[in-house]
Amino acid sequence: MSMVNAFDPEAESGLSPAEKDLVRRREKLLGPAYRLFYEKPVHIVRGEGVWLHDPSGQAYLDVYNNVASVGHCHPRVVEALSRQAATLNTHTRYLHETILDYAERLLARVPSELGHVMFTCTGSEANDLALRVARAYTGRRGLIVTKLAYHGVTSAVAEISPSLGDYVPRGDHIRLIPAPDAYRGDGDVGARMARDVREAVADMRAHGIEPAALLVDTIFSSDGVFAEPVGFLRPAVEAIRAEGGLFIADEVQPGFGRVGPDFWGFARHGLVPDMVTVGKPMGNGHPMAGVFVKPRLVEDFGRKARYFNTFGGNPVSCAVGLAVLDVIEGEGLAESAREVGDYMRAGLRDLAGRHPAIGDVRGAGLFIGLELVVDRAGKAPASALTTRVVNGLRERRVLISATGPGANILKIRPPLVFRREHADIFLDRMAAVLEDVAAQ
Amino acid sequence: MSMVNAFDPEAESGLSPAEKDLVRRREKLLGPAYRLFYEKPVHIVRGEGVWLHDPSGQAYLDVYNNVASVGHCHPRVVEALSRQAATLNTHTRYLHETILDYAERLLARVPSELGHVMFTCTGSEANDLALRVARAYTGRRGLIVTKLAYHGVTSAVAEISPSLGDYVPRGDHIRLIPAPDAYRGDGDVGARMARDVREAVADMRAHGIEPAALLVDTIFSSDGVFAEPVGFLRPAVEAIRAEGGLFIADEVQPGFGRVGPDFWGFARHGLVPDMVTVGKPMGNGHPMAGVFVKPRLVEDFGRKARYFNTFGGNPVSCAVGLAVLDVIEGEGLAESAREVGDYMRAGLRDLAGRHPAIGDVRGAGLFIGLELVVDRAGKAPASALTTRVVNGLRERRVLISATGPGANILKIRPPLVFRREHADIFLDRMAAVLEDVAAQ
Repeated sequence: MSMVNAFDPEAESGLSPAEKDLVRRREKLLGPAYRLFYEKPVHIVRGEGVWLHDPSGQAYLDVYNNVASVGHCHPRVVEALSRQAATLNTHTRYLHETILDYAERLLARVPSELGHVMFTCTGSEANDLALRVARAYTGRRGLIVTKLAYHGVTSAVAEISPSLGDYVPRGDHIRLIPAPDAYRGDGDVGARMARDVREAVADMRAHGIEPAALLVDTIFSSDGVFAEPVGFLRPAVEAIRAEGGLFIADEVQPGFGRVGPDFWGFARHGLVPDMVTVGKPMGNGHPMAGVFVKPRLVEDFGRKARYFNTFGGNPVSCAVGLAVLDVIEGEGLAESAREVGDYMRAGLRDLAGRHPAIGDVRGAGLFIGLELVVDRAGKAPASALTTRVVNGLRERRVLISATGPGANILKIRPPLVFRREHADIFLDRMAAVLEDVAAQ
Repeated sequence: MSMVNAFDPEAESGLSPAEKDLVRRREKLLGPAYRLFYEKPVHIVRGEGVWLHDPSGQAYLDVYNNVASVGHCHPRVVEALSRQAATLNTHTRYLHETILDYAERLLARVPSELGHVMFTCTGSEANDLALRVARAYTGRRGLIVTKLAYHGVTSAVAEISPSLGDYVPRGDHIRLIPAPDAYRGDGDVGARMARDVREAVADMRAHGIEPAALLVDTIFSSDGVFAEPVGFLRPAVEAIRAEGGLFIADEVQPGFGRVGPDFWGFARHGLVPDMVTVGKPMGNGHPMAGVFVKPRLVEDFGRKARYFNTFGGNPVSCAVGLAVLDVIEGEGLAESAREVGDYMRAGLRDLAGRHPAIGDVRGAGLFIGLELVVDRAGKAPASALTTRVVNGLRERRVLISATGPGANILKIRPPLVFRREHADIFLDRMAAVLEDVAAQ
């Protein structure tokens, strides 16, 4: 999560008295961890589809929030939530159909080798559980992640989330490898990543540590969004397996159709992970997440570790999850993500013809990275310019943010109900903002 | 979580074909971690108040589920959830009133020294965050917990949850102290606990580890439910603070009025913790939790650790949390918990007059432990008898479970809308089951 575009509470620039009051209450009640987006924060009171509304009724086009994936406040999801919450909400120590119906639908969506699904409430909990299983199964503790990875905020997954910065301690069992950056890197991305994995393993072993797993977000969201060339992940996965380690695919961001009909980031690369973690869009905002796992990995853990998640897999969450799948399938959202994503990238490449600050347009489906550079030859990150673009878009009522080591990569990942007409609005406003900042 | 009363899938005793089918689908889809309560599992399809219903319409009296604290499917909570979910559900990087209104209501319920509240989705995440803050603030890593504590299932909090068993690894930085058991212990419980804390610190230091915190569930649920004498926690808290460590009160189980009008377990002991974690009943089943913290503890952490919880503190969760507080206050549930809890304990002590297997009746409000022993002089745990009582109650449509090192302590913690009339039903059925098992 890039914070370059965060609000500075000392400035309070351009806020109304009511907004200033909200900002002050936040600081007093919630403390300094609670940051706001944008130089001028946005006050949101209502959501619908791809739109978020402020109290004056102004509509903001949401091109950033990948959680409300089937659209803000989708009526079918709200209805499923409301109906089940009025009927029963309890834990998984009693028999109940809905968790089983949902698990069947989910498991039909992943390779058959991933035979079980376990439910948690957040992506952090899902990744944390995957680490517990990986360590218990392999008897090892070494972990390999990318240089600017984000996998969550529990103690164990914050350690493997270097995008959180150096304040967060990192254990001696963790090795960082470069992101598979085909824009800046030279040569074969896949071969380089495999070599990096082997070197990380060798360095671990030199310190007496054995590799338990390679864990990657298969769209490399916080590293800068890397999707191409398809298949580049395979050599790295072969490399970790050759060393006796597992491959865990973190699908919390790319999963559930965002990357297109392949449905999962790992599927684009033709892989079968040992575990897959999912979260954010799974409940369209309802707190739910999970882990798909090869059964042999949890044979022992399942019997002996006494894992139980109080809220995980409750009937309300499962009813919501079923409704989300119904909407994705019924409205053809994975197909639409591919089609509208291609349309968006084509439009952005058009813009790049007029704006040399656009160094690269990349991604898969509706997960798009747009990299802004000082000049195309040197590719130096245009960090300050990106901040102006993000805040300029906010002024034109488009919600977006930036990512990557230079915080110069626009992260474009709207709700999947984002259609061509919305892409056109975005491209128009983007063009206007690029002209504004070029003229400044 | 005691598993002595768990269903044995090999037995499938007394299940209908439809129930057997559900059991087999669970094993196939969810794997071995998903255990069922009772020798004959219960299939639940509907909840209302203190009742859970099976498909045939049979009603089970719920004296166990502390999550649905204001009653299963409370209409006011369901209405708040449904309304807000139809309006807006997004993260905390935009301005929104509801999180602030809720934070104000929550903070008014705790000592003023606890100036901030941070939101997570589960009690595990809340305890995990508290550990991260404690380690960052103190620069230390030593932790002291009770011998059979349960604090959650992330890697870091599973380590300090010895009730999960020996399969779960425990770090070298953790020291276990005996639970404050006034029934089995002799002498002053508080003085003994303080001495145990000092000895744990000395042992840490002998291994080069400094104490970061003492963390306790203030009702000691998994240790066996220990509530008396009021104030016994104070010397232990003074002891950890004298050594430079923090005191973290885990209120995930006792909090939100279950122990009576004191509202929190720590408040009964006249303490001001450095951090307080809350969860389970906070959203009456909606996945939400949080940490109250003294502001100086998160001054650095809040600015530097980039903590952000995607679902934590979202408008829907906060609307639900407000509705739960409204119900607790509007229906006088904390006062009722004290009154009905006293009535229950009196009734159970009456039963003890006729049943020598009842060794002790204890607790606070509607968090009651009933200990079954082989004989009152020796106090040997009546583990097998307890299993028969738990399953006997299930046959008489009362849902309960057992806890403690001998799994011989009935854990009685019904929804707080449990009234005298429900206590009478429970006491009648309990009497009948005790007579049954005595006659066997």
